[in-house]
Amino acid sequence: MQIIDLSHEIHAEMTIFGGTEKPEIHRKNSIQKDGFNLHEIHINSHTGTHVDAPAHMVLGTKYLDDFPLSQFYGSGLMLQVNRFAGKEISLSFLKNYEDQIQEVDFLLLNSSWHKLWESPEYHQNYPVLSLESAKWLTQFKLKGIGFDYISIDPVESQDVPLHKIILGAEILIIENLNNLDSLPEEGFYFQCLPLKINKADGSTARIVAFVE
Amino acid sequence: MQIIDLSHEIHAEMTIFGGTEKPEIHRKNSIQKDGFNLHEIHINSHTGTHVDAPAHMVLGTKYLDDFPLSQFYGSGLMLQVNRFAGKEISLSFLKNYEDQIQEVDFLLLNSSWHKLWESPEYHQNYPVLSLESAKWLTQFKLKGIGFDYISIDPVESQDVPLHKIILGAEILIIENLNNLDSLPEEGFYFQCLPLKINKADGSTARIVAFVE
Repeated sequence: MQIIDLSHEIHAEMTIFGGTEKPEIHRKNSIQKDGFNLHEIHINSHTGTHVDAPAHMVLGTKYLDDFPLSQFYGSGLMLQVNRFAGKEISLSFLKNYEDQIQEVDFLLLNSSWHKLWESPEYHQNYPVLSLESAKWLTQFKLKGIGFDYISIDPVESQDVPLHKIILGAEILIIENLNNLDSLPEEGFYFQCLPLKINKADGSTARIVAFVE
Repeated sequence: MQIIDLSHEIHAEMTIFGGTEKPEIHRKNSIQKDGFNLHEIHINSHTGTHVDAPAHMVLGTKYLDDFPLSQFYGSGLMLQVNRFAGKEISLSFLKNYEDQIQEVDFLLLNSSWHKLWESPEYHQNYPVLSLESAKWLTQFKLKGIGFDYISIDPVESQDVPLHKIILGAEILIIENLNNLDSLPEEGFYFQCLPLKINKADGSTARIVAFVE
């Protein structure tokens, strides 16, 4: 079994969502001075590759720690959606995969935007779900839907309807996934275990896939 | 398959190693004020339940990111060692399990100290490996050795010989494990995937076991 890394590196100059603070990672102690190496880590709950809880955007819904750990692990389906760059991912496209979506826990949409990480283009023109596509997806028993770009909604969205539709259905959103090209379309397990923090509206995580 | 949580919660008043800083977790944005919930997280590379890289204590050795991800996942053996409270875990005891240790990737030593988490007693009298026990363990192809207390060495140790023996053999150390009583002795998989940070001397992690 192979473990495939789906996370971007956390560092001070990494891509962040506009208006949020940059992470700080700095060496506090060194072997030469103190006998041990230790570094401090200042991040937020949505730094880099991360999971959104329903309570990130929807009042009165679940935090990550309200779910059992089984919510963060399960079978996956990866669909190529780069043909929708600058457009909406249509319901007619998704309906071609209805039987497969029915059978998995996680749907990962691969726009190829992970290759634009740390470039200005990363924040623009990525394919987004249409409203009817998002609503249609909430009928499935999905644990989460993952994307290889900065936000399920367009960056400039104020009312974030796609967040509200998916999170409102108690389906996790996973953002800033890396390396989706390394996955087969089917036959893998996806894992997005969060840090153990009370009332976590989200969590940076080491997100991986397991492939036989 | 069941996922067993082996991590303690990260919060401001949690147990920390003497002399290090307390974590800070605070709400930065709220749905009511900003339209979304987000919190800031200030931790260090050895906060709470975490993995030590060889480079935590030994100059010129590997950081966590120098290992393939397969280093952080594998079969486990859990041994009860609470009979050695206040004493050293003897080589003669470990030798009883030589055949089993030979066959696994991770050895977890359950002292029951995880039940003392967040009490002053957590920092005292836990059973530690004898020097000869630690040296003997380095002959195996172990990926890591885990403990349910604050440090593989006694808290007051200045020269941390047990860290140096185990990490010097490129075996990971996992500290502050929780919930080891929920594991069977054998027949589980252990996972300690770190956050993706360059030159990571250690990493707080959501550490779990998978049991059929």
